[in-house]
Order: sequence, then structure tokens, then C-alpha cells
Amino acid sequence: MDKIYRVNMTDLTVKQEDVPAEWALLGGRGLTSTIVAAEVPPTCHPLGPNNKLVFAPGLLTGTPAAQSGRLSAGAKSPLTGGINESNSGGTAAQLLARLCIKALIIEGQPKEDKWFNLHVNKDGITIQEETELVGQNNFAIIDAVETRLGKKTGILTIGIAGELRMAAADISVKDPDSKLRSHGRGGLGAVMGSKKIKFISIDGEGAPGVTIAAPDKFKAASRVFAKALLDHPVSGQALPTYGTNVLVNIINEAGGLPTRNFSYGQFASHDKISGETMHDTIVARGGKPKHGCHAGCIIQCSQVYLDQDGKYLSSGFEYETIWALGANCCIENLDIIAKADNIMDDIGIDSIETAVMFGVAMEAGIIPFGDGEGVLRLLTDEIAKGTPLGRILGGGAGSVGRAYGVIRVPVVKNQSIPAYDPRSIKGIGITYATSTMGADHTAGYSIATNILNVGGNVDPLKKEGQVELSRNLQIATAAIDSTGMCIFVAFPALDIPECLPALIDMLNARFDSSLAGDDFVALGKQILKVERKFNIEAGFNSAHDRLPEFFTYEPLPPHNVVWDFSDEEIDEFWNF
Amino acid sequence: MDKIYRVNMTDLTVKQEDVPAEWALLGGRGLTSTIVAAEVPPTCHPLGPNNKLVFAPGLLTGTPAAQSGRLSAGAKSPLTGGINESNSGGTAAQLLARLCIKALIIEGQPKEDKWFNLHVNKDGITIQEETELVGQNNFAIIDAVETRLGKKTGILTIGIAGELRMAAADISVKDPDSKLRSHGRGGLGAVMGSKKIKFISIDGEGAPGVTIAAPDKFKAASRVFAKALLDHPVSGQALPTYGTNVLVNIINEAGGLPTRNFSYGQFASHDKISGETMHDTIVARGGKPKHGCHAGCIIQCSQVYLDQDGKYLSSGFEYETIWALGANCCIENLDIIAKADNIMDDIGIDSIETAVMFGVAMEAGIIPFGDGEGVLRLLTDEIAKGTPLGRILGGGAGSVGRAYGVIRVPVVKNQSIPAYDPRSIKGIGITYATSTMGADHTAGYSIATNILNVGGNVDPLKKEGQVELSRNLQIATAAIDSTGMCIFVAFPALDIPECLPALIDMLNARFDSSLAGDDFVALGKQILKVERKFNIEAGFNSAHDRLPEFFTYEPLPPHNVVWDFSDEEIDEFWNF
Repeated sequence: MDKIYRVNMTDLTVKQEDVPAEWALLGGRGLTSTIVAAEVPPTCHPLGPNNKLVFAPGLLTGTPAAQSGRLSAGAKSPLTGGINESNSGGTAAQLLARLCIKALIIEGQPKEDKWFNLHVNKDGITIQEETELVGQNNFAIIDAVETRLGKKTGILTIGIAGELRMAAADISVKDPDSKLRSHGRGGLGAVMGSKKIKFISIDGEGAPGVTIAAPDKFKAASRVFAKALLDHPVSGQALPTYGTNVLVNIINEAGGLPTRNFSYGQFASHDKISGETMHDTIVARGGKPKHGCHAGCIIQCSQVYLDQDGKYLSSGFEYETIWALGANCCIENLDIIAKADNIMDDIGIDSIETAVMFGVAMEAGIIPFGDGEGVLRLLTDEIAKGTPLGRILGGGAGSVGRAYGVIRVPVVKNQSIPAYDPRSIKGIGITYATSTMGADHTAGYSIATNILNVGGNVDPLKKEGQVELSRNLQIATAAIDSTGMCIFVAFPALDIPECLPALIDMLNARFDSSLAGDDFVALGKQILKVERKFNIEAGFNSAHDRLPEFFTYEPLPPHNVVWDFSDEEIDEFWNF
Repeated sequence: MDKIYRVNMTDLTVKQEDVPAEWALLGGRGLTSTIVAAEVPPTCHPLGPNNKLVFAPGLLTGTPAAQSGRLSAGAKSPLTGGINESNSGGTAAQLLARLCIKALIIEGQPKEDKWFNLHVNKDGITIQEETELVGQNNFAIIDAVETRLGKKTGILTIGIAGELRMAAADISVKDPDSKLRSHGRGGLGAVMGSKKIKFISIDGEGAPGVTIAAPDKFKAASRVFAKALLDHPVSGQALPTYGTNVLVNIINEAGGLPTRNFSYGQFASHDKISGETMHDTIVARGGKPKHGCHAGCIIQCSQVYLDQDGKYLSSGFEYETIWALGANCCIENLDIIAKADNIMDDIGIDSIETAVMFGVAMEAGIIPFGDGEGVLRLLTDEIAKGTPLGRILGGGAGSVGRAYGVIRVPVVKNQSIPAYDPRSIKGIGITYATSTMGADHTAGYSIATNILNVGGNVDPLKKEGQVELSRNLQIATAAIDSTGMCIFVAFPALDIPECLPALIDMLNARFDSSLAGDDFVALGKQILKVERKFNIEAGFNSAHDRLPEFFTYEPLPPHNVVWDFSDEEIDEFWNF
């Protein structure tokens, strides 16, 4: 029987509750956003006692369905001031699901300056004071907790960035190799830090496991679904071979690779940081070119990237991080970028927000463009030490922009714009502008249709069709984010007719429900509307659904295009 | 014939324009807000090329009317992100008015990294490159410009804070003693810095002067008006004797003196920083207890405060600054506070924003509460040097709160709450919440009626009548801010029946107009609505008309009251 846990950090109590009937068919983002919207006062201070941090595995998490091992985390974001959901791979989601924990809601905050850990097992949740590991970073936390509790322990943890409540701090999740994945975006690590929880350990021993109402139906649908994933050229070939970093050359070719803090659309040294170069480097050094972030992943888009001496540097080494430090900061050395990624993972700070921030820091003159060693130094000597400069940098791109009076600051709702220039790939601009999360490519990944010809093609340089494209993708994504599925299932779902019905069949087999395609769309719409309502009550209006002004008057080479949507055209997005 | 000047800093050109008919009866705030709302895109970057900085003397400025020498400055605020008007005494307003300059609109920004000055005289405005005085602070600028151009020169200048585009930077105005007054609030110094204008010099030689349509009527009304100012106990006695700092003991007694970063409502050492103590200290040291910020001031609420060696420290030594560094930072030494005020004047940073910020910095642990020497050190070694810590501090209270994860951050729309705790003086809380400027006591000074029994009495501890009180005051203030009058004319205007009619008579005599009391109210309403519309288009909604959450759950001693207005009650404000 699924249950809800409420951990109250003000009085250090734990309550177990039944799942309300209306939450039965919600999971992942659908559940975290519903709970946050229902229970968090929209104008509360995000680091104050009235914010709540909610974890929820997806609806299919814990089942054998491929790609279903994502965990959603939600709260009011200290970065955007709006609602936030950020999902992650790793082992925690499946452990929580098998322990029948539908949601873990963390409320309140201690009045004393003490740190705590939470331990979750089949008997419930205990709150313990933590002293030993305070001040430690993520890799050390994982080592120490595994030493304390065993290798199989699931771990959610924050590094020093979360302890210091930096707005770019993330929550890390132990992966199957005792490395980590992240609830990266929105600053949720700062919320966990504000609750004074250093880590959450999860013991799956004796877990009841997930009940599947119709196992045979589930198995059949699951096979169709997995086949679709493997058959699609993006999820079946490109991602497993080159990882997400396959995109460097593709986006550069399209003239949409933001370079030198969004001043150009192509990077002369793109080859040095490309997925192809990365693949060859990994193979030559004996790393793993394919790797999954959770059990049951068959796409295997991640990798194990080693340094020249064969030492581990990164496993979730993503295109967005590589682009941001590479093209956007003009750093041509993949090893330095990997080293920076390793440090960002360790101190627990979002690698998109932070890497985009470095472009703004370079524009502000804090270090020169191209200064990879400078980036490493700022990470270790400033951010990780919480110096004043470190706190400015740890607040993300908007923070640096405000502190240094920079005008070219690529953020929407104060969250950094990733990896795809909205001037030359216009569909993603609509997603950046309108997403309830602030700029977030995963919220409605128009690149699929604008660039990769997945789900048809919409010319990236023209305005026609972009609003509809982004709307459809954002609705579908909100629903997918509720299933516990990795977003890359969207590629086959857009192109292979059997894929989405198989996903819905799995949901129906799991819950003995009778959802149809329309219900899936309705779920996505409902989630977006719940999130939007929260944001409006938190102080957003349509003026926040805008890209930074510089996109409208600085033409981007090589296409020399500006962002040219009118306010009315953008606001059409919400007509559904 | 009045005229408008447009200075374009992108192409370094100056244009003179006729005054559009619809602006003829606008001045001061009414004119700056109308121009900003009409010409500045609400979602533009406040430090980018599309923001405009507008200066406008009031409608009566340049006439012999008492108290009429205020200059309004307006722009989109880099501190709040909304519209801003900040008015100041000093000599510039009267010089501009006598040069028949109705408004000076500064547009665009240079592409090159060069600094400029503007010189205004009877023949027009010239733009000159400035190298010598870049990097200098305000007192040095005033000295140097007087040496260059003569003692009579009017000067508008920014210090290092404005050059660095800090969000708390102000614009300073030379006063009659070659010291300075400030357009303090909203960060307009950063806007001037973003336009690369270090100072504006004004030569009134040969100025045509202000034409008064009906001189005899004007003179008669002017006498009635001046008599009312002198007859009222606040403007005629309390303010001239003790300055605005008369309020320390009064507000302490009322339990509304925010102490230790808004944790208590009374300060045990209030006597050490009171107006009475200040007065005696000034007299003992041979300073001036009475002083005016502009020619024609008969209230003389300012003073010349000298240090123990008889050296000048401050002249506009206001209650809000003394409260913020005194009670709110627990600094008991008036000399240290005056020294800090001197440094803030010199580097050109708002003394309300900055002093309130120090309370948050103390709460963040940057320096301890009570550490006056620490405040001086942070001002000179950090803010004035533009170090990373200095940039955090120079961004104001909200900036420090975000960088250090502080929850008790007293700001509305990111602007610091001054000097009067809204939990125990509830009318001012409505003003803080709803003002288009962000927290701003001058926008609707309910203290008059809540505490000083001016304009009747509304119990400060009860909710009844506060919304109406704040609404009436904000409407009247917006209109008064358009006349060039100092806000303290509101005291007699509220109590002495002849006062407001005399003010309106002066307007009619000046412009040959036939305004009635209702027109004055209509003007105030129109200004507030224009400003509110800009703010909504810039991204504000009613969720921004809220006090910080901590006021709702932290009871303030000694009355142990919280901020208890519902959202609906606050939103009633805009029903007019």
C-alpha cells in the first residue's frame, strides 16, 4: 500500500499518511507540483519554514519498465521564486518506489543551528542529528554513508553549495556506480540546506516492491516500449554512441551554439569538445562510452570519462555542461571541462546554471574568456569556500549579472538559458520564455523537431509553428515527467506510433486504470496549469514569459537573426 | 518658453523639443513618471540602452514659493525592476527651472568604454568626454567642478557606486553649501553610470527665469502658504529644532523602532542616537542645528553635524539613516553613524538602502551587530573598492539576503523598508506594500496620522482605516511630488485649512490655470495609475504588494503584534 511521509523539521517528527484518492494517478512531477501548489504559500520565502521539499518517484518507477527510474523533487525555487520540479536518475527513485513511498514531504526547519540526516527503510523514517559529515562534499558523503550503512544504500545529498543555501545548489543522487546524478535545476539543494538536512539515506532491504495489477499486460507493453526505444535513431544509436554531447557539432552546424556568452552562434573549436572527440577520448583511455544512470536504462546515454591517468572525472557528462564551458566560455579543453564538471558534482551545484554563469562572469571581467584554469580556481577557491565572490557566483548567472551590472545575461525567470540559441532555434525560445520552471530545455525540447527532424520538422529560423510545437512538447513532457520516465523516451514517442500507447498500457497495467491518450494529454495540461497558477500567485505575470532584451536587438551570427516574437505571439502559448 | 532636452548617449547628440501640450501641467514626479511610462519599454534591462534617465524640476520650482526647490529623477529602477522617481533638494532644480528646462531626458548609452560629462547653460547642453574625474567620489567631484566652472555651478554627480552600477547607487546634487543631497532611492546612480555620465554641470548665468502669469496672486498665496508651514508644530517647530531625527524617541516610544534587523520594536540605547542628543551635540561643537537643503526652504530640517574636531561630517543627517545604523544595527555612537553617512554621501550610495542592508549583513554574520567600525571598514574597503563583497553589499539588503540565504530581509519589491515597523505602525505597512516605488515611507507617510496626530488619528496597532489613510496620502504625495515641494508641506496641508488651497493658488498663478482641489487629487491618482501600469507591464502583480513573510509570523515586541492584513485587504488599496 503506497503511503506519504511527512517529515517536520521544526519539531523533528515524522508522520505517515494514506495517499489521498486524487493523488493516486499522480507521480513524479505531477505529484510534486500538485503538493507544492496545494501546500506551499506562493509568496513564502523559499528558504523559510513554510516552503516544502517534496520527493516523488514516477508512476512507473520501481517497475521493470525501461527508463522508468527518475525521481522528481519539487519546492518553491530559491532561484526563480516560482514552482520548481527537477528530476534525476540514480538509485533513490527505485528504492523509494519499492518501499511504497509515493511522496516524501519535508516541512518546517529547525530553529537551532544543527544539521540532520534522514534514514528511510521499510519501517519508516528516522531523523538523526548529523555532525561528522557537515561541511563535506558529495563524493565524500557517498563514501562515508556507504561505509556506515553498506554499498546498497540509496543516498540523496547536498554538498557545500547546498549547506550555504546558494541559489544554484543542487541535490545529488547516488548512481549505480556510487557516483552521482543531480536534481540540478532551480536551487533545490538550497531548500534542502535550509531544512538542515545534509543527506537522506535509503535502505531498500525488505521493501515490499511495486505491485503491478496486470503483470502480463505490463510485460507485453513493456517489450513494445523497449523495442521502440532501441529502434529510434536518436535513442537507439546517437545517444548511446556519443551521449548528449552528440549535439555539439549538430547545433554548431545549425548556427545555434551560443558562443562567448551568447555573442555568436558557432564555435570555431567545436571539434575539440564534440561528442565524437569525447567518444574517442573515452575509448582511448579505457573509460565507458555507454553507461546508464539507473537500473533499467537501455539508452545508456551517459559514460564514464577518465582523465589522462585513468582517474574518474565524470559520468553524467552532458552536452549542456560541455557547451557552456566549451563554446560559451571559449574553453577548448575537454579535460578541463570534465574536471570542472567533477568539482560541480562534488560541491553540489547545478552544472548548467554554473557553467552559463561563468560566461557572464567572463563578460564581467572576473576572469578572461577561455580561462579554464580560472574556472577551476573559482570553483575550488571561491564557490566551494563560500567567499563573497563564491556566493555571487553560486547564485547563478543572474546573480553575477546583478552584482556586476552586466546587460547580456541569458536567463529567464532568473534561470540560465541552456545550450541552444533562441534566435536561431526559435521553438526552444518559446519553451524558455513560457516554461513554468524558467529557462529549461527539458521542459519542451523543440530541438527534436527544429533540428533533429523528430516528430516532423519545423524550420528553426521561422516563427511559424513554434508556439504550437513548444506547447505540445511542454504538455507531453509534463505528463512524461510524471511517469518516472527519462525525457528521451520522447524521441520514439514522437516518431514510432506504438511507443506512446505502450507507455499508457504500462500505466494501465500497473494501476488497473483505463487511461487513454487524451487522458495523458489532459494530465500534462493540468500540471502546467497548476504550476502556472502557483507562479502567478508567487508574483509572475506574462512579462516574465519573455526572453532577455538583448536577444531582441543583438543579431546572432551566422544567420544574423534576432528574437522577433511579439508579446502577443508568445502569450498564445497559454491558450489551451 | 519651457523646453525639453533629449541627450542621446549612443550617438552623442542633443535635441531640443517643445513641451507637448499634455505635459504643460506636469512637473517633477508627474512628468518623470509620465515620460518613463511612455518611452521606456517596461521589460527592458534597467542598465541597457533602452532605459531612460529623466530629470524634471517641479511645477513651482524656480519660483519664490517656500519649499519648492526639489528635483525629480526618474527611470526604470535597477533595484526594484519597476518605475522609479526619487526627488532631491540641492541647487540643481532651481537652476534647471530658471533655464526653462522642463525635462532633461537622457537616452541610449555609449558603445565604447568612455566617460562623459554634460554641461547645461542658457545656450543648451554639450556632451564632453571626461577622463580626469572618473573614479573620483562626490565631494571631490564637487570641488573639482567648482574649480573648473565656478562656485555657482549646479552639479549632479555619481560616485564610485554609480560608476560600478551598484543597485543602491544614488545621484548626488550639490547643495547651497557645496555639500550634497541625494536622489537616494531606487538605484538611479547606476542608471546614470550605465549612460557613462559622471556628472552634469549647470550654469545658470543669463537664465531667463520662471515666468509667473499672475505675480500678485502668486505673492499673496505664497504668504499664506509660508505662514501655514511656520504655524504647524511639526514643520514650524519639531523639524527645525531636532531635524527628522526628532523621531527616534517618538517611534521608540510607540514600539515601532525596528531594532536588530527588525527583531524588536524598541532600542534600549535610543537616547544615545536621538534628535535631542544630536541637537545638543551639534550646538556644543559649533555646528548648525538648522539648515536648508535649497534656497527658499523655511523649515530648515537639516543641520551641519561636525565631528569632535569641528570637521564637517553630514548635513542631511536623517532619522532614517540614524535609525538604520543605530537601532537596527545596534550602533550606539552618533559620530560613527555620521561618519558612515559622510562616506555613503561621498561614494554615492543610498543611505537608507545601505544602512538597512548592514542590518541584514550583520544577521548574515559578515560583521557582528553593533560593530560601527566594521560598517566604516565595509564602506571604505569593500563597497568603495568594488570588491566582490562590496558588490554584494552595494546591491542593497535584498542582494545580501540572496547571497547569504538570509530569511529576515526587510524589503518590498527588493527595496529596503525604512525606519517604521509595519507590524506596530500598520498604516505605513500598507504604504510599503503598495507603493509603486517599493518600500518607501515618503510615498504615503502614514506616520503623520498614526503617530503624530497630524490629519487626525488612526490607531497604529489596528487595521481599521489604514488602507484608506495610505491611499489618501499616496495620492496627495504623488501630486505634491509634482510641484517641486518638499514632502513636509504635507503636515500643514493636513491640518491647516488654508494651506493646500494656497498651494493650488500658487500653481494657478504660475500657469494661468484654473485647477481646483479635485484636480490636484485627480493628478495624484493619475500618476499612481501610470506608475502601476508600468510596473504591471514590467512584471509586477498583486503578489508584489506584500510585505516580507517574516512579518506575518514573527511577533514584534513590545506589542507582540504581527502583520495581519489579508491579501484582499491590501489589494483594496487600488480601488480608486
